[in-house]
Amino acid sequence: MPSFTAPTADVRFALRQVVEPGSLDEDIAEAVIEGAGQIAADQWAPLRAAGDREGARWTPEGVKATPGFADAYRGFVAGGWGTIGIDERFGGQGLPFALQIAVYDLLGSANTALLLCPILNNGAVEAIAHHGSDAQKALWLPRLVSGEWTGTMNLTEPQAGSDVGALKTRATPRGDGSWSIKGTKIFISYGDHDMAENIVHLVLARTPGAPEGTKGISLFLVPKYRLDSDGRPGAFNDVRVVSLEHKLGLHASPTCVMSYGEDDDCIGEMIGPEHGGMRAMFTMMNNARLLVGLQGVHVSEAATQAAVDYARTRIQSPLAGSADRSSVPIIEHPDVRRMLLRMRAQTEAARALVYYTAGQTDRAQAGDPAAASRVALLTPLAKAHATDIGCEVTSLAIQVHGGMGFIEETGVAQLYRDCRVFPIYEGTNGIQAADLVTRKLDLDGGAAFAALLADMEADAQHGALRALIAQCRDVGARLGGAGVLDRLAASSPFLTMLSTAVCGWLLERQAGAASDEGNAFATRRRAATAFYLDQVVPHASGLAGAVSAPAAALYDLPSPDFA
Amino acid sequence: MPSFTAPTADVRFALRQVVEPGSLDEDIAEAVIEGAGQIAADQWAPLRAAGDREGARWTPEGVKATPGFADAYRGFVAGGWGTIGIDERFGGQGLPFALQIAVYDLLGSANTALLLCPILNNGAVEAIAHHGSDAQKALWLPRLVSGEWTGTMNLTEPQAGSDVGALKTRATPRGDGSWSIKGTKIFISYGDHDMAENIVHLVLARTPGAPEGTKGISLFLVPKYRLDSDGRPGAFNDVRVVSLEHKLGLHASPTCVMSYGEDDDCIGEMIGPEHGGMRAMFTMMNNARLLVGLQGVHVSEAATQAAVDYARTRIQSPLAGSADRSSVPIIEHPDVRRMLLRMRAQTEAARALVYYTAGQTDRAQAGDPAAASRVALLTPLAKAHATDIGCEVTSLAIQVHGGMGFIEETGVAQLYRDCRVFPIYEGTNGIQAADLVTRKLDLDGGAAFAALLADMEADAQHGALRALIAQCRDVGARLGGAGVLDRLAASSPFLTMLSTAVCGWLLERQAGAASDEGNAFATRRRAATAFYLDQVVPHASGLAGAVSAPAAALYDLPSPDFA
Repeated sequence: MPSFTAPTADVRFALRQVVEPGSLDEDIAEAVIEGAGQIAADQWAPLRAAGDREGARWTPEGVKATPGFADAYRGFVAGGWGTIGIDERFGGQGLPFALQIAVYDLLGSANTALLLCPILNNGAVEAIAHHGSDAQKALWLPRLVSGEWTGTMNLTEPQAGSDVGALKTRATPRGDGSWSIKGTKIFISYGDHDMAENIVHLVLARTPGAPEGTKGISLFLVPKYRLDSDGRPGAFNDVRVVSLEHKLGLHASPTCVMSYGEDDDCIGEMIGPEHGGMRAMFTMMNNARLLVGLQGVHVSEAATQAAVDYARTRIQSPLAGSADRSSVPIIEHPDVRRMLLRMRAQTEAARALVYYTAGQTDRAQAGDPAAASRVALLTPLAKAHATDIGCEVTSLAIQVHGGMGFIEETGVAQLYRDCRVFPIYEGTNGIQAADLVTRKLDLDGGAAFAALLADMEADAQHGALRALIAQCRDVGARLGGAGVLDRLAASSPFLTMLSTAVCGWLLERQAGAASDEGNAFATRRRAATAFYLDQVVPHASGLAGAVSAPAAALYDLPSPDFA
Repeated sequence: MPSFTAPTADVRFALRQVVEPGSLDEDIAEAVIEGAGQIAADQWAPLRAAGDREGARWTPEGVKATPGFADAYRGFVAGGWGTIGIDERFGGQGLPFALQIAVYDLLGSANTALLLCPILNNGAVEAIAHHGSDAQKALWLPRLVSGEWTGTMNLTEPQAGSDVGALKTRATPRGDGSWSIKGTKIFISYGDHDMAENIVHLVLARTPGAPEGTKGISLFLVPKYRLDSDGRPGAFNDVRVVSLEHKLGLHASPTCVMSYGEDDDCIGEMIGPEHGGMRAMFTMMNNARLLVGLQGVHVSEAATQAAVDYARTRIQSPLAGSADRSSVPIIEHPDVRRMLLRMRAQTEAARALVYYTAGQTDRAQAGDPAAASRVALLTPLAKAHATDIGCEVTSLAIQVHGGMGFIEETGVAQLYRDCRVFPIYEGTNGIQAADLVTRKLDLDGGAAFAALLADMEADAQHGALRALIAQCRDVGARLGGAGVLDRLAASSPFLTMLSTAVCGWLLERQAGAASDEGNAFATRRRAATAFYLDQVVPHASGLAGAVSAPAAALYDLPSPDFA
């Protein structure tokens, strides 16, 4: 199993770059980072490999978490680690969301599969906090916020994936204000487990006579156990796990096929207004998308550490051109070193993008509408680009390990497998790219995009970065005037291009501050930033051909002739 | 499990482009392609998923192949499918190597794990044919060529991976011309199995008093069973499989830890001269490297077919901007279609590169020294670039499948796992890139590289392609004058850049001929080629920053400070 060191210096640095001066006490931040780092290294990281090997198990009595997870999760709850960024009105600590991200960065880099449970819970809390009634908030939030109960998101059905509007789960009024829920949901992460005493499902469903498509969807809160008069979990609510999926990775996270109301005895309550499900879903998903972007950072961090570790200790061949013919650690060989520096640069790029968006979330929360727009604009970038980076960096980690990388016991193969779902769930990266070109470019009449470009142009120094930003401006303007199919044809490469520009901007801007963390940290940061600006940024400019290709080029080949 | 159709039209087309006129009877070629295609689809493809699930098994009596593999392999032997490209003097059919590649393309696209056994056998046959004595050829080749026995390559030891010269396995003279072999080898694919009656290991070892490093290595033939006086497998030769590796993929291919001479009773015979092991190894590996490149084509073909299939049948959301609001197959959505066309284009690019190199191998065989140099120059490109493409295309296949791609039963996750070793074994892709910049650029005093550039420049029409070729010329000239560390720092991105130029050249050059295979084929070919030239080629130009970065940029960060 690869060793793991909590990346506290990187986390502290990333956090400092995005927290508003005065909004966070330095001592508190330091205590939180140190504490979370210690739990990450001592308790969470050792469970990573076993969670992959043994995975969550379905039993007739319910899903059993992977060994050690329940204890680690209870420690997380007892320490209040998931309550940091949540409003004090709901039982949270009211600290910046960016600090919550820092904690999740540390814990998830140690064990991304375990952290997925709190991440999903976060989304459920947000949805109830924004759209629930006062009574619902009072009833459900305290224990969801504390983590004693966990929340899930139930969107997908076999015929309704990216097309959420195609879902068929039914909600029928029971006459007392509550609803009967009936239907099947798939791909429900942590849909069941034995780490918490209740599980609160947020379920999208259709009410009688509801309009077709997304307009007719409502959101329901459906607990595994109904609450008794004391507000404690009581009677079983006819919520069953039919099976667990057999997945490529993330084995410790149970991915459930859920059946609601098999015995017609599943009761839910509506959250928000009837047919208001999509809005609530977006609330639920927005932070979740950013947190999935953070999962890309998790695996990148873990993979980079493992690869650097291996490359420092694996001795193989003398250095080319050296008079000394004794063999050296492979980190000394140029192509291995290039891979490691690339991994480091990409990890820092992804981390900068996610933290920056989190910092803007805090500003938006404090009432800054421009920051809210920036969050909306950057969320698809953070989700898609950071998860693409996760896939690339974990693949490089395997490559650095050579043959050992293909052996499961080494542990990097797990990271490579685990992360492959990140570009898929919470809206595929294609959906993120579509969101960027069809909604976000036009946000506030295009002002959000223009403001981002202006900020980048004001700061950027490196020639390749300035060129890339100018390209983004041109492409954005052209896509703004293009038809929707042309926009979509260019969407994914444009998302990569713009994300790379944003990451380059953030890394360059932050380079000066790195000396606060010590000389070694500053040197690493400088080398990684230079690599990013000199190598990654110009490569993104090479997407010029892809972003200017019209949709027609894709349709010249009729669908039946693709294979 | 994904459906599989033998890609006979693609194979026929690719073959026609590279076979010398008059060197191959059309009817024979057609019969071979049709026959291999049928076996691929009917017998090999159905074993793919089971081979992943059940894998090869270690038992005290030896390794058991995955269910169905032994029968399929025996059918392969009976049909003489592995003998096509081998010289008639050694019991082969003496047909072009390119036709052998065509057969391996069809069979391996159906089941790359099973085909790996014949691929390795091919390398063993080449080594014995080129370096063995007449007596050795007479004794060993007939049954290795037929496939009744299978051959392996034993290079790697725990401390000797890319650094082959560090190996410690010992060969001691027994006084009768034979040698006692003692040592441990790791990562030996098909090191044991029950599909053939004997296994012939080609083992690199060190003789007493041999010089350090690669100069002191000799090659030994070490059978699992010694031959009796009738030349039949007889006494056990103290060759043991200690264990099988637990791998990310390719589960059906047993990756063995081999122990030679545990009881000091393992006898081998030397192939070629003492200390001539490296030369023999390169003979063994050269074709093998091209055939590993072909494995990249295998998984790309299978993944593209699976993704196109899924995208044609998965209905989700109306087409953006369309007045018709009914949901459409996802192949109609621009970003999905872009992924599919990219997969198709990259698969055809990899196939063109591998076949072209195979065709040049046939010309070299016929005595053309320029072709031999071109094979030497292109082999690292074919191995590295085609396997990189395999990883990219299988990842895209998962993405097209969305959540279903992460579920093992869908079958594309297997392809993604299986192929991850291709950029590693038979010389990592980093080793290939090093070979390119430190040996192949200077081959024939630089004439081989210059001739390739001249051929490309003479043909290329597309502006982006001409620009990329010009870049390759500049970079090649600059690297030629650079120090070895600077060459190596640029090696991997330069390999990608040059490979993309070669693929673009081949695809553009072949576009006109596609109409021979029918309109649908020609349309697909045209669309894929246009995509490649318009999108993939300009992106490779974006590597300009990476190929001009000096090694110093990598060493600014001291090794202890990488993480």
